[in-house]
Amino acid sequence: MNQSKPPLVVVAAALVDGQGRVFVQQRPHDKAMGGLWEFPGGKVEPDETPEVALIRELREELTIETETACLAPASFATGMIGERPLLLLLYVCRKWQGVVQPTEAPDSRWLHTNQLFALDMPPADAPLVAMLDALL
Amino acid sequence: MNQSKPPLVVVAAALVDGQGRVFVQQRPHDKAMGGLWEFPGGKVEPDETPEVALIRELREELTIETETACLAPASFATGMIGERPLLLLLYVCRKWQGVVQPTEAPDSRWLHTNQLFALDMPPADAPLVAMLDALL
Repeated sequence: MNQSKPPLVVVAAALVDGQGRVFVQQRPHDKAMGGLWEFPGGKVEPDETPEVALIRELREELTIETETACLAPASFATGMIGERPLLLLLYVCRKWQGVVQPTEAPDSRWLHTNQLFALDMPPADAPLVAMLDALL
Repeated sequence: MNQSKPPLVVVAAALVDGQGRVFVQQRPHDKAMGGLWEFPGGKVEPDETPEVALIRELREELTIETETACLAPASFATGMIGERPLLLLLYVCRKWQGVVQPTEAPDSRWLHTNQLFALDMPPADAPLVAMLDALL
């Protein structure tokens, strides 16, 4: 396999509430993999560390504020998007300020980890669910 | 923080034997962070996926053969090496061919995860021990 291009690094958060439930949201129907369920997050831009990117994405997508100290590395997944290698980093976050209010997602849910297995998720997200179920 | 350079991706393996012990090795004394203990692995080269790089490193460092299907993503850590962002990916591997024979390390051990906490490890490796202890 050839990856002359550097990997596309994507960060995502498993927000965990006081009842141990995890937040998931549905991708907009007009986007790639529309309608599938995913953890909030997005691409790391060239001028960002992974944590800075995730803090920005959570602000943009959910109107909440968190900080690097509240982002605990949980697991990761690798894959390919076309010919470009993908690296998906999943953090657990239990502490944030504000109320989780999705700005783009058509639907969202707080679910216990054993309920996540039943969701249709993008290929890179799915293997992270088993890891999360073991960790939380 | 500025990361105009793409992240340096380093892969490492927690090899787990039939008794649930994990392999660690000591860094050569003439290298950076010499004498510290670490999981085997190394840098992902531009033409490699993370898994291909780890298979190569395990062959070079330990004379064993494994395959992508035997490498389970476990956790990750982020950091900085000077001004370059570092991304360390840790896989669990329970299946390989050959006998683990360190080719460079001055010392090596098979330890239970709760014994790993006492080791002097590089900054990026240390936080992975707690995760491993929770997973295994």
